[in-house]
Amino acid sequence: MTKSFGSDNHAGVHPAVLDAIVAANAGDAMPYGADPWTSAMEDAFRHAFGPSAHAYAMFNGTGANVVGLGLLLARPYEAVLCPAPAHIYTHEAGASERVLGVRLVPVPTDDGKITPESLAGQLHGLGDEHEVQPKVVSISQVTECGTVYTPGEIGALADFAHGHGMYLHMDGARLANAAAYLGCSLRETTADVGVDVLSFGGTKNGALGAEALVVFSPELAGATRFLRKQGMQLSSKMRFVSVQLTALLTDDLWRTAAAHANAMAFRLADGIRDLVTFRYAVQSNAIFPVLPREVIESLQQRFTFHTWSETESVVRLMTAFDTTSEDVDHFATAIRTTLKP
Amino acid sequence: MTKSFGSDNHAGVHPAVLDAIVAANAGDAMPYGADPWTSAMEDAFRHAFGPSAHAYAMFNGTGANVVGLGLLLARPYEAVLCPAPAHIYTHEAGASERVLGVRLVPVPTDDGKITPESLAGQLHGLGDEHEVQPKVVSISQVTECGTVYTPGEIGALADFAHGHGMYLHMDGARLANAAAYLGCSLRETTADVGVDVLSFGGTKNGALGAEALVVFSPELAGATRFLRKQGMQLSSKMRFVSVQLTALLTDDLWRTAAAHANAMAFRLADGIRDLVTFRYAVQSNAIFPVLPREVIESLQQRFTFHTWSETESVVRLMTAFDTTSEDVDHFATAIRTTLKP
Amino acid sequence: MTKSFGSDNHAGVHPAVLDAIVAANAGDAMPYGADPWTSAMEDAFRHAFGPSAHAYAMFNGTGANVVGLGLLLARPYEAVLCPAPAHIYTHEAGASERVLGVRLVPVPTDDGKITPESLAGQLHGLGDEHEVQPKVVSISQVTECGTVYTPGEIGALADFAHGHGMYLHMDGARLANAAAYLGCSLRETTADVGVDVLSFGGTKNGALGAEALVVFSPELAGATRFLRKQGMQLSSKMRFVSVQLTALLTDDLWRTAAAHANAMAFRLADGIRDLVTFRYAVQSNAIFPVLPREVIESLQQRFTFHTWSETESVVRLMTAFDTTSEDVDHFATAIRTTLKP
Amino acid sequence: MTKSFGSDNHAGVHPAVLDAIVAANAGDAMPYGADPWTSAMEDAFRHAFGPSAHAYAMFNGTGANVVGLGLLLARPYEAVLCPAPAHIYTHEAGASERVLGVRLVPVPTDDGKITPESLAGQLHGLGDEHEVQPKVVSISQVTECGTVYTPGEIGALADFAHGHGMYLHMDGARLANAAAYLGCSLRETTADVGVDVLSFGGTKNGALGAEALVVFSPELAGATRFLRKQGMQLSSKMRFVSVQLTALLTDDLWRTAAAHANAMAFRLADGIRDLVTFRYAVQSNAIFPVLPREVIESLQQRFTFHTWSETESVVRLMTAFDTTSEDVDHFATAIRTTLKP
Repeated sequence: MTKSFGSDNHAGVHPAVLDAIVAANAGDAMPYGADPWTSAMEDAFRHAFGPSAHAYAMFNGTGANVVGLGLLLARPYEAVLCPAPAHIYTHEAGASERVLGVRLVPVPTDDGKITPESLAGQLHGLGDEHEVQPKVVSISQVTECGTVYTPGEIGALADFAHGHGMYLHMDGARLANAAAYLGCSLRETTADVGVDVLSFGGTKNGALGAEALVVFSPELAGATRFLRKQGMQLSSKMRFVSVQLTALLTDDLWRTAAAHANAMAFRLADGIRDLVTFRYAVQSNAIFPVLPREVIESLQQRFTFHTWSETESVVRLMTAFDTTSEDVDHFATAIRTTLKP
Repeated sequence: MTKSFGSDNHAGVHPAVLDAIVAANAGDAMPYGADPWTSAMEDAFRHAFGPSAHAYAMFNGTGANVVGLGLLLARPYEAVLCPAPAHIYTHEAGASERVLGVRLVPVPTDDGKITPESLAGQLHGLGDEHEVQPKVVSISQVTECGTVYTPGEIGALADFAHGHGMYLHMDGARLANAAAYLGCSLRETTADVGVDVLSFGGTKNGALGAEALVVFSPELAGATRFLRKQGMQLSSKMRFVSVQLTALLTDDLWRTAAAHANAMAFRLADGIRDLVTFRYAVQSNAIFPVLPREVIESLQQRFTFHTWSETESVVRLMTAFDTTSEDVDHFATAIRTTLKP
Repeated sequence: MTKSFGSDNHAGVHPAVLDAIVAANAGDAMPYGADPWTSAMEDAFRHAFGPSAHAYAMFNGTGANVVGLGLLLARPYEAVLCPAPAHIYTHEAGASERVLGVRLVPVPTDDGKITPESLAGQLHGLGDEHEVQPKVVSISQVTECGTVYTPGEIGALADFAHGHGMYLHMDGARLANAAAYLGCSLRETTADVGVDVLSFGGTKNGALGAEALVVFSPELAGATRFLRKQGMQLSSKMRFVSVQLTALLTDDLWRTAAAHANAMAFRLADGIRDLVTFRYAVQSNAIFPVLPREVIESLQQRFTFHTWSETESVVRLMTAFDTTSEDVDHFATAIRTTLKP
Repeated sequence: MTKSFGSDNHAGVHPAVLDAIVAANAGDAMPYGADPWTSAMEDAFRHAFGPSAHAYAMFNGTGANVVGLGLLLARPYEAVLCPAPAHIYTHEAGASERVLGVRLVPVPTDDGKITPESLAGQLHGLGDEHEVQPKVVSISQVTECGTVYTPGEIGALADFAHGHGMYLHMDGARLANAAAYLGCSLRETTADVGVDVLSFGGTKNGALGAEALVVFSPELAGATRFLRKQGMQLSSKMRFVSVQLTALLTDDLWRTAAAHANAMAFRLADGIRDLVTFRYAVQSNAIFPVLPREVIESLQQRFTFHTWSETESVVRLMTAFDTTSEDVDHFATAIRTTLKP
């Protein structure tokens, strides 16, 4: 098929990741993570995120998010504050409500990001037994709108959360793209600025299927293994998940892959910038141009991409680690000629 | 204490209800509803709501709401659409999420009421496994803003719900006040206009502590007893709950009590109407005047009532079945003199 | 109807309790427990159970049990060990599993009581993420078999539980009968011997409908109000629940009522002891004679009581605070003449 | 390491499965199962299990079990009857209770198998709102004790279940081993004898990590996609899970792999049969010899295997698709010489 701009999970597996899987198929290993490949993966996370990082392999992002939020919620009347477009609120089929029995409170946002100011209005009814009690702030880095928090913005959210007895969870399904955009380390946009628990995304970065829950608080780590098992995220032949994560963290493959995807998105944006406006800032591997409805329909007959907003006539165009300049230029030309036949 | 304008649950018990409780203390009775008083209560509901009404005694409104919503939800990925200020969303401590594992979706509203138009925007992602699937519309009659749906408005919501494969649940904690305001029967604003399941409120109407879940679909009724037990709402000496409900339904005591409470609220509104504006229409036993912050503070030192909105400087003044004209006039005078010393 | 021997919840309300309800109907009161009657109830519990007792009014026993167990469970992979015939396991419709998401582990027992020895075999898989982790031991006092733990036995269970990082919960639906049998105070069989959380039963002791959750650990008490609300057990006009509990605790009415019920059961046992064997020891207000099947059938046409075990041909005969000597003698004679026509 | 006899999930991936994964890494594909590899997998299941089979790829066995049971439970007061040693009861950390809110009822068994007779005693309290209502019978094929149900035994359980308004779920984590032992097709021990929903195990049969939920009732299939997503089992790059399953179903690789594992277990049993007794019948790839405690300790210093029962001094020795005759003979000799030095 023509290169998809639908999502970075339309792509296959990065060759280095696949090689690592094949290499791990070397006889027996203890299951459930008691194997040397998983130990190496845990080391790789400590190297990348600092010594406080405890990493746990998970199957998918929803699983990592639900287990991670569950870890932070001590009582079932506690609630999670998240931006209204957050993946946990919009695209996880109510898994948090179902599995955790928790309220997710959607906080209004224009660009996918929230701030201490936008959170402040949600802190009502504290101590009132009739109301849910906010306990966790959850943000996505990159956001669902393709925007990126600066480390300073995250630090401010962490300070706000901690100052009000709350934790900060980060859905880092595309953390690699954010760090690549910011030019910072993985640690600088997470552990160093107060993130308590991170869902680290591998799959969209080039893995076959591998995510990690990274817990930065030793006192929380103990419960994680149980919550992972009960959350149906415990892999028996875990080595094959672990090596994917290690491969991404080795020689900063995560950054190479993400930076390339970002560059392809920027190239696509540059290729149409004179003809369109972008609904959100171009900061990662997803861009959100406004296109006339008939142009969208025409392009979707030849290309794969999502309509983001019917009412605003906005589409989402997303690149991956394996998107090529030719793919981008071909698509940009098609957009241009459809806009200006 | 000075008569409270804080809530209709600050009041005690209507003498007729208390008499009924005392009268029911006549020797043994089979527990869990297998008693003649409960049968009589069920008959009274059929008389008031029509032959399709199956009534189940419950302890409190939250219990009735959670059991009622649970009855309508067949699968845990189904969601409930409700007005943002709905009691189930704002003042039940996340009981629905916890017990049912369900998403409650807050629908914006200015006056507590929702419409087919405001619901239409929530019907996205139908059939998409990543999104919760709307299955129930829940409304409050009277709303939390003191406003009242007309039977026609409820019918339109029921038609919309049923036309989209959804059910209509009504939180009728103050249904009596609504029917008294509308001058209609209980049936005309519920069963006759398409309500599927009703939480019928007795406590705020003069009961000691008695609500009923009224199920209008025979095929749903079978599961109710189990969900009530599992929902911790099954009374063992149920006769003492049932007789409260029967007392309210006898000789339309519900209407007498509610109409009086409404009249007292209207009298209060009339007493200050020239000096204040009301945030919402005056249609029941709660009025929502806008008062200067210092006036609120001054009055709250002498009277009991709630601040509804700090930011809008709105208070909620609520009357009960036992509020007297003297109570009202005393309070109205106080408001007037505080506003215009 | 002829006096029932089916259950102590077939009885009505003790006059002193009903009087207290009527007396509390004195104008307005703050709702949800912020009223002087509830404060007095809390004092009465501290008086009866010692200064560490924090009492919370609940609607029914299942509600008290579920909220109480929920209070003790910090993580959803934790489990509750209970005797196989425990009410929480056999007659609460799976409320704990549903609301708490927890495993209840049935521990075999012959007479309704468990011991440290019978618990020891359940402590497997500790620290193994594949297995649920025992966190609470729950016992009933009186047990479902009518037997009574001595304070020493409870203390041994508490020591065992605490020694293994677990809590001890007591379902005291008939605690009054146990204390009356033991001739001890309420405190001596609960707080003084290590019970952490108690479901205190009022309804079967003569209340209209009132239970209390008594929390003996200050650090746990904070969450109780929220869990009660979310657990649909928060009464709005709480004074009418509180006064029932206070009435039972005043002048040891609980003991008078329970001792009478016990005495009536012992009288019934004495009246048939020469003709039958008892499946369990006679220690409270329930006796469990073995009767021939045809005798059971004949008696059930004239008297109300439950068959306890079809296979063992055991029935349960239960007395209440208002069972009279005449009721007992009439029934005993009927049993005798049916056995020996 | 020396070949493990600890579990068949200590093994790596069958080369044919790994080849299939590598081959599927061919450019873009639509995610979440909308890809040709997943369609081919679905076809392969219909070919193997008959036209009624709807297959859904899952990450792991616990996920398949929980989603599958959830599909069969219409109401939260319904319960699952399963053998006491069932994996869902003993080794899934209470996932069913947590996610489904359901009671799992452990049915006593000596050899891991249950029968209509052993189920009959569990059907009490039907229609009684105080008791959970049995709705699903769940069996494991192969059982946790290594024993295998005949198709006739499964048919009898299905008839019993359906005759009482219940469904039959099969945890087929080692279904391949059972069918290989029985010499029958996959269909003959599932769809043809009344199984409603099957958790089909790929991982222990040679996959990297792939299970399938196979639903044999079209009316149930509709909800599966939603429950899978909400159950955190939806793979985004699903093709890489699907091809593993297809590889096992192609040219009956599942049978070749399982029959070999079985044969290795039988060879091991034959090698020590004159010296030991087996706790359970030898029918699959797990054998359970009774060994003296000191022999167990000595062997565990050199070999990897689990102690099954401390009290009975029973161990579990399990083979895999890649266990060799040399591995077996080496281990058998070690056992013999340790038993008879």
